[in-house]
Amino acid sequence: MLMKNRLLSDLKKNLSSSNVLETLEERYVYAQDASNRKHMENLPDAVVFVENTEQVQKVVKLANKYKTPIICRGAGTNVVGACIPAKTGGIILNFSKMNKIIEINSENMTAKVEPGVILGDFQKEVEKSGLFYPPDPSNLAVSTIGGSIAQNSGGAKSFKYGTTKDYIIDLKVITADGTILKTGSNTIKNATGYNLNTLFAGSEGTLGIIAEATLKLIPKPQEKKVFMAYFDTVKEAVLTVNSIIEQRIFPATIDFMDKNAIQTVEKFYPANLLTDKEAALVIEIDGLACALEYQEKVITEILKQNNASDIQSSHDDKEYNRIWKARRSSMGACAKLKPNVTTDDVIVPRENLAELVLGIRKICEKYNLIVCMVGHVGDGSIHPQIPIDYNNEDEYKRYKLAKSEIYNLTAELNGIISGEHGIGAEKREQLPKVINSVALDYMRQIKKTFDPNNILNPYKIF
Amino acid sequence: MLMKNRLLSDLKKNLSSSNVLETLEERYVYAQDASNRKHMENLPDAVVFVENTEQVQKVVKLANKYKTPIICRGAGTNVVGACIPAKTGGIILNFSKMNKIIEINSENMTAKVEPGVILGDFQKEVEKSGLFYPPDPSNLAVSTIGGSIAQNSGGAKSFKYGTTKDYIIDLKVITADGTILKTGSNTIKNATGYNLNTLFAGSEGTLGIIAEATLKLIPKPQEKKVFMAYFDTVKEAVLTVNSIIEQRIFPATIDFMDKNAIQTVEKFYPANLLTDKEAALVIEIDGLACALEYQEKVITEILKQNNASDIQSSHDDKEYNRIWKARRSSMGACAKLKPNVTTDDVIVPRENLAELVLGIRKICEKYNLIVCMVGHVGDGSIHPQIPIDYNNEDEYKRYKLAKSEIYNLTAELNGIISGEHGIGAEKREQLPKVINSVALDYMRQIKKTFDPNNILNPYKIF
Repeated sequence: MLMKNRLLSDLKKNLSSSNVLETLEERYVYAQDASNRKHMENLPDAVVFVENTEQVQKVVKLANKYKTPIICRGAGTNVVGACIPAKTGGIILNFSKMNKIIEINSENMTAKVEPGVILGDFQKEVEKSGLFYPPDPSNLAVSTIGGSIAQNSGGAKSFKYGTTKDYIIDLKVITADGTILKTGSNTIKNATGYNLNTLFAGSEGTLGIIAEATLKLIPKPQEKKVFMAYFDTVKEAVLTVNSIIEQRIFPATIDFMDKNAIQTVEKFYPANLLTDKEAALVIEIDGLACALEYQEKVITEILKQNNASDIQSSHDDKEYNRIWKARRSSMGACAKLKPNVTTDDVIVPRENLAELVLGIRKICEKYNLIVCMVGHVGDGSIHPQIPIDYNNEDEYKRYKLAKSEIYNLTAELNGIISGEHGIGAEKREQLPKVINSVALDYMRQIKKTFDPNNILNPYKIF
Repeated sequence: MLMKNRLLSDLKKNLSSSNVLETLEERYVYAQDASNRKHMENLPDAVVFVENTEQVQKVVKLANKYKTPIICRGAGTNVVGACIPAKTGGIILNFSKMNKIIEINSENMTAKVEPGVILGDFQKEVEKSGLFYPPDPSNLAVSTIGGSIAQNSGGAKSFKYGTTKDYIIDLKVITADGTILKTGSNTIKNATGYNLNTLFAGSEGTLGIIAEATLKLIPKPQEKKVFMAYFDTVKEAVLTVNSIIEQRIFPATIDFMDKNAIQTVEKFYPANLLTDKEAALVIEIDGLACALEYQEKVITEILKQNNASDIQSSHDDKEYNRIWKARRSSMGACAKLKPNVTTDDVIVPRENLAELVLGIRKICEKYNLIVCMVGHVGDGSIHPQIPIDYNNEDEYKRYKLAKSEIYNLTAELNGIISGEHGIGAEKREQLPKVINSVALDYMRQIKKTFDPNNILNPYKIF
């Protein structure tokens, strides 16, 4: 307790008092994120708002002095517990005040940002210059760039445009001892030494603290259009992806909703969805205006050949937003079924995707749980959303058993337990199911190299 | 000597005799690659052809027993000395017999290959399935996939499609102690633990030995077309890139030739090039057939507005090949000017590219050297090709001084000393010019983590 008081006093001395939160209520707020946790039992010692790199360095030095953990946090939208303490104590490093877009350089097609910049705001700014930053996790209206780098976020457009890691060209990282590490370069390509950029992408704050990022931008596609189509079987929906690729069309997105997702959305947010169908695809194409018409014709033809029904396409912004709203409302609709809702993130090679979807459904039936499935079928990625009541002990137990079986099935189908959310505290015990001990051992050694005192977001990932 | 004999005897016992080369002549051949080295003084102890993973593991175990280095080699096209011994001795591990395409999986859009597969052959196989593997280093007709991963190769299409690292989803690596390490997953996206794939991409055989790679494929563009246009100033050529991007057109390639490159190609491989111009751009567009016509119209208009002259575009394969042949003949043409020819690879943010090109020219004039410059202007990447006579001591001295000044200039212009060739033995002393000591120190620690006995391609990169 004495040590905690000394830590707080040192923090206030080094930062302004108003940037250090210490009341129980404030600490309780920051013991939570958007993850599937029944209890938020691990209160941090303090929540600290940093305003610049020097302050980050100061906090890291204090964390070393008091041997206390640092847990970085952007908007707190994390769904795997990566931005809350894994054990009681530690400092939550809040980046919401480091939210400047430092530069958007049109000539270089790069941008330099602080980690607290809201992803959606950044994309809008970039698009004003006719450029494009594709990573689009569904929470981008509130989530931060720092968080998206820490978790290597993906999103609906990953199929064509890749994930966050593909857009990082340089990071200013504060290391575990408070030193500044520049991981990359200001250039688009780099074959000069080891690639430290992508080592930090997805490292969930366990290797260093990102204080600034330089990102690659690409030309903004001229136009976009979205299609929605329904199928009688999951398999037919999945196979349609390859029928499209065979025509050498590269959609930005090929997303998926299963029967439960369709029905639940329609129940709470009516959008004229066909509730008797097993699956729907949401396909977005983008690019030159002149090419959209051709792609629409080909895709419509392919959908018909693959037994799709009720094919809709967006002819204006209203239609575009209606289709995307339906796809994106799944989590919110699920939340109305029970007091709590959980999401997950499993991914397999696409040839095993139909089996994964049907297997997850069977597992949830076995445990008497509702599951709505949406996902990025192009990538082989599925988000099973399970509404539950945390106060129902029996249901919670069934939920945990179902989750474990879902991870087992994913591993059997040659997949992994996260494609775009990360591992955090939630899934660390599941990691050996999909990563062998040799790789885990090297990852642990890398962690030790960068964080010998285990100060940076400890007990996450492994 | 005794130890060397024991090593050779052990190698022959563990592999077939015919896969172990030991004569002076044979070892001399493998003391060379395509790099800018005056002398090939470091003979290996043996050259070993491996045929499968188990044999690689056996060789690694022997290397540990005899504390002798292993230097991996594909086709030996490396230009920075990454695949030859940095000091006398060691085992050259030749992968040319591990050249199977294990699988091209159309449904998953992935491929699994052995490291000795020729890149160009692989691309042709992939394209038979209507799919596309974009990385295209200019030596792809002979160079191997293993080498391209080790060096994180780029190529003309990097501007739109990224480099090799962007296509690796899993590697089977033999570690320094002979264990098998699986670096990734069979899925397109991965946020499950640290990204080891891209740590190995560009690690030049210093962290582990790649025995198998799983690669991501994308849909093959329907059509392609190339333009060539001339400019009176380098600056105008460079600025044209942004004029194109502003129209939201994303060419696959925006390549560059300077005056000397144009003149030298025209001298030895006449192709009706305009030899009085300061610079030429080679622009390739690809995608849907219906969109090419539109892009051609817009690009032609932009080229005119940017004072380009003699704009040519390919209307058939013959024209396409003629333009690309001119661009790609630069190195061969340069080689005819002097007994030897050297190439290099520097890259800066695009806003500094014109200054880099003009600066390199000035440096070479100062040292009375010829320089032909080609490069990927979209990426900010330049390959200065300097023909010299290694037997001319004075010229060689001037060449070394010029090179050092070129790296200094690159660093001043916020660039790095390799975008796609790597560092190898050639540039290791230059590395501190562009990578700060903190990053270098972490890279060295990573090296030590993976290769504690410094057996894997020692004295490369750092």
